[in-house]
Amino acid sequence: MYDTTKPYSERIQEIVKRTQIGKDFPPSSTDGIGEKGRYHWQQRTFREVALDALFQNLNDAGVMRFKVKYLQNHIMIPRDDEGAITEIVETLAEQCIKRNIVITSGETAIHESYPGVEISVNVQGEYIERRPNVFQQNEVLLGAGSNGFTKIGEIFGSEFNPEFVRPTPSYYDALLDLLKQRFQISGMIHVTGGAFTRLKSPLGKGLDAIVDGTSLIPQSIFYEISSKEVPDEEMYRTFNCGVGLILAAPEKDLEDIIHAFSFHGFNPRPIGKVVSGTGKVKIKSAFSDKQIIY
Amino acid sequence: MYDTTKPYSERIQEIVKRTQIGKDFPPSSTDGIGEKGRYHWQQRTFREVALDALFQNLNDAGVMRFKVKYLQNHIMIPRDDEGAITEIVETLAEQCIKRNIVITSGETAIHESYPGVEISVNVQGEYIERRPNVFQQNEVLLGAGSNGFTKIGEIFGSEFNPEFVRPTPSYYDALLDLLKQRFQISGMIHVTGGAFTRLKSPLGKGLDAIVDGTSLIPQSIFYEISSKEVPDEEMYRTFNCGVGLILAAPEKDLEDIIHAFSFHGFNPRPIGKVVSGTGKVKIKSAFSDKQIIY
Repeated sequence: MYDTTKPYSERIQEIVKRTQIGKDFPPSSTDGIGEKGRYHWQQRTFREVALDALFQNLNDAGVMRFKVKYLQNHIMIPRDDEGAITEIVETLAEQCIKRNIVITSGETAIHESYPGVEISVNVQGEYIERRPNVFQQNEVLLGAGSNGFTKIGEIFGSEFNPEFVRPTPSYYDALLDLLKQRFQISGMIHVTGGAFTRLKSPLGKGLDAIVDGTSLIPQSIFYEISSKEVPDEEMYRTFNCGVGLILAAPEKDLEDIIHAFSFHGFNPRPIGKVVSGTGKVKIKSAFSDKQIIY
Repeated sequence: MYDTTKPYSERIQEIVKRTQIGKDFPPSSTDGIGEKGRYHWQQRTFREVALDALFQNLNDAGVMRFKVKYLQNHIMIPRDDEGAITEIVETLAEQCIKRNIVITSGETAIHESYPGVEISVNVQGEYIERRPNVFQQNEVLLGAGSNGFTKIGEIFGSEFNPEFVRPTPSYYDALLDLLKQRFQISGMIHVTGGAFTRLKSPLGKGLDAIVDGTSLIPQSIFYEISSKEVPDEEMYRTFNCGVGLILAAPEKDLEDIIHAFSFHGFNPRPIGKVVSGTGKVKIKSAFSDKQIIY
């Protein structure tokens, strides 16, 4: 998705919307790997990089409440490598067949001056439910675990940690299941670029989101990042700190939702609440005694 | 499109087809800029790079005989640059609005370790005509001019020529026009990766394609490339040598087709013929007295 953290992202969205006026069109998501692709190339983790690109998009589709029907991919590597390309395409195909997704086109390109793998994935499909993403007062925020992060190059330089190449988990199948069971989920966010600042957009006027950063304990890698003099404000703006998906639901449905997730191997738990306020996100940091406010 | 010049491209196509078995799905094309993107970044030719990425895909759509309805884009640049991103998105949006195409999703990513612009574009749409791409004996090959080329970095190094950043022309509007007028075009190729070797695939069994490389005189840049000790065999395999589009049609329709193209500013001319043979492409070189056979 167009990065919502850039200061000019509204301008970009506005330009794109000009093409959409008065048109009905299938829901769609676009995302890639980013700078992490360098580690995947070095480590030859081609299955992992394919899963990561795919799951980033499937998770966005789940949060946008659509079932994916078609996928396109654009693979870039620094030099021709049959093993790499076939492993990536095999992985995508195997995952698509499981979910009845058709790969409709793709491209493999050699970019000698880029030292990593990039896979730009597009998915399109059909809405299961069309509903604005708006949190309601008094709803509970439920968080599901993840290991995803970006911008690690800036912090770790040439240091390597196996966490860097572990793909994001796929929440898509679980979300589709919940939507088909007609659970009332008023808002969802996939915690990627912009991390917890993404909670701002589904906050209705006059509401705050309160998050306890210690309720899903961040993996040790995040403590390691924090210890490299990354301020808490930056931690929760850039890294998901162990929370990959957040959804808002009425208290009475929590148990059933957690139960439905458990069938897919997830164990989400309450990490916060939607309360009356002024559109702020307030986080109790896991890394210090501070409260972060966005 | 998946590069057809790689020795393992059939294997990739076969893996992708597994996801398509028994399914109906909208026609789609995926393509990007490739290594040329370095020149666009250096020269800040953001309008040109956006047009090039778009037209590559529109041309593929035209050759596949489909009308484009939806577009997604993934823009990569080495550092955040509002001017670059807005110029690219504005250009795509303006071109899409003209043709009733909706931009349904996109991504803007900063890749600090890639010194160029890459725009991965996807388009999907609806077939105007579903017809196998098969040349017929005695048909004439009609070529339309172009300036496109790839792999210039290997040959020119850090040298720059304004031709490097000139976008490919768009044949799409002309092709759509021809298809709507129900011209009988038995086969078409967009002369990109693989260049003239692409003529092999629409050759039915027992046919050869004979091309006279001097009938559309290559631009001077191609003579310059040829003079850098690039053998003729490589010239016609890697560069389009001034021919961007080739279509096969019965002799009796030529005049009407050329007339229809002229409304879109193109002046295609006969460059060859489909004759009885053994599946070979035979080219009279513009750069020497040689005949090239693929």
